Amino acid sequence: MKARVHVTLKQGVLDPQGRAIHQALETLGFEGVEDVRQGKYIELDLAETDAAKAEALVREICATLLANPVIESYTVSLQD
Amino acid sequence: MKARVHVTLKQGVLDPQGRAIHQALETLGFEGVEDVRQGKYIELDLAETDAAKAEALVREICATLLANPVIESYTVSLQD
Repeated sequence: MKARVHVTLKQGVLDPQGRAIHQALETLGFEGVEDVRQGKYIELDLAETDAAKAEALVREICATLLANPVIESYTVSLQD
Repeated sequence: MKARVHVTLKQGVLDPQGRAIHQALETLGFEGVEDVRQGKYIELDLAETDAAKAEALVREICATLLANPVIESYTVSLQD
């Protein structure tokens, strides 16, 4: 089973990577981009085949290692 | 209109970030994780309201700035 995790900065937290991309796009002449936010995307291949157990495992992994809960939030989605 | 971009390393390209996460999970005692791949996730807020034009703009942005086409591939999805 495959899990897809998105880790993003919470609303209101400064996102220097997103701001750098935004400025680079303006420098390159791209118009009509109002805001940019960058996050992390992680794919996990799991041996677990039970969706509920897999989601519980991935949420524990996120809380322990992948996300900083002070400034980041995360979403988990599963695929067979 | 909001665009969501996923930039991931192509199959076969070494992913040191994913490997570091995988090793950390083993050190922390998490079992049943067979592989980990890390990519980038970028959200763009666009002034454009036409979906086809927005997608064309975002694909140009990806090819120009966000992805390295030698080693990375990208996907674009749009939301109203």
